[in-house]
Amino acid sequence: MNTQETTAAAGITLTPSDLLEQWQGHRALTRRVIEAFPEEKLFTYTIGGMRPFGELAAELNQMAAPGAHGVATRQWIELKDLAKEEGLDVAPKTKAGILELWDWTTTHMNKIWEKLEPGRFQESDLAFGMYEGKVWWLCLYFIDNEIHHRGQGYVYLRSLGIAPPPFWER
Amino acid sequence: MNTQETTAAAGITLTPSDLLEQWQGHRALTRRVIEAFPEEKLFTYTIGGMRPFGELAAELNQMAAPGAHGVATRQWIELKDLAKEEGLDVAPKTKAGILELWDWTTTHMNKIWEKLEPGRFQESDLAFGMYEGKVWWLCLYFIDNEIHHRGQGYVYLRSLGIAPPPFWER
Repeated sequence: MNTQETTAAAGITLTPSDLLEQWQGHRALTRRVIEAFPEEKLFTYTIGGMRPFGELAAELNQMAAPGAHGVATRQWIELKDLAKEEGLDVAPKTKAGILELWDWTTTHMNKIWEKLEPGRFQESDLAFGMYEGKVWWLCLYFIDNEIHHRGQGYVYLRSLGIAPPPFWER
Repeated sequence: MNTQETTAAAGITLTPSDLLEQWQGHRALTRRVIEAFPEEKLFTYTIGGMRPFGELAAELNQMAAPGAHGVATRQWIELKDLAKEEGLDVAPKTKAGILELWDWTTTHMNKIWEKLEPGRFQESDLAFGMYEGKVWWLCLYFIDNEIHHRGQGYVYLRSLGIAPPPFWER
């Protein structure tokens, strides 16, 4: 695929602010999904041997702030190291703890995004020593992974008789 | 959010070809999820009163080619009208029929994408009389909706004892 050529033909598509807004919009919805779970079900309820939603939310917390941090600064740091001076519980076992970490992440992402340099999205990088690609693609991968697991949370909630928040509200 | 200012600061992010590749990559994975369902379960198996995956796949088929068509041509046409000269079954009730429509969609999307004009992604539009936003955002919405429902398909498969295809393979 000739990226250069297509860019010349069709110009810009989305900006760093657009992408951050997209990411945070999805995170706001996931937050409401976490809130919708009864405390106990968040850590015990599973279908088909999958992880409880509390564990999926923990994965999303481990990816979001460290992911945005790596995108913005080129430093891929684990959550425990990133948040260690904050006195936060980075492996919470309560709904309140997960949400507290979630909210810290939201703030950290907004703050670190200001360090993003021109052209960074077009660089290639290896996120967390695992995911390789252009930086814009890594961002979409983090977002896509969240949508994927959140969709699974919708099934858990429905099977518990709980109506999940509307997908189109961010 | 000041989009103009951020664009000036950080430049382009992704191109129409990149976006199409992202969309088609997700669709290729969803196709493998459809294939993983036993024929009968595709139309009957549900959790928590949700739609069977065959119905979710039908929704995705109804959005993809018409969505890409609207993005590229500014004409929002229903699938039945878009595909009527093709002799295709646009409401298939078999796995083979769903996959046939899926493959026609893949080809149509690639073809219609060539009509996309410079600057189109930055226009605002109202997709299918329902979804309003910048055109790049509409594209992401269609993709996100597919990831969301496909994630639900993963839970259905797991609860049927079937291993879904890896999420990271596109």
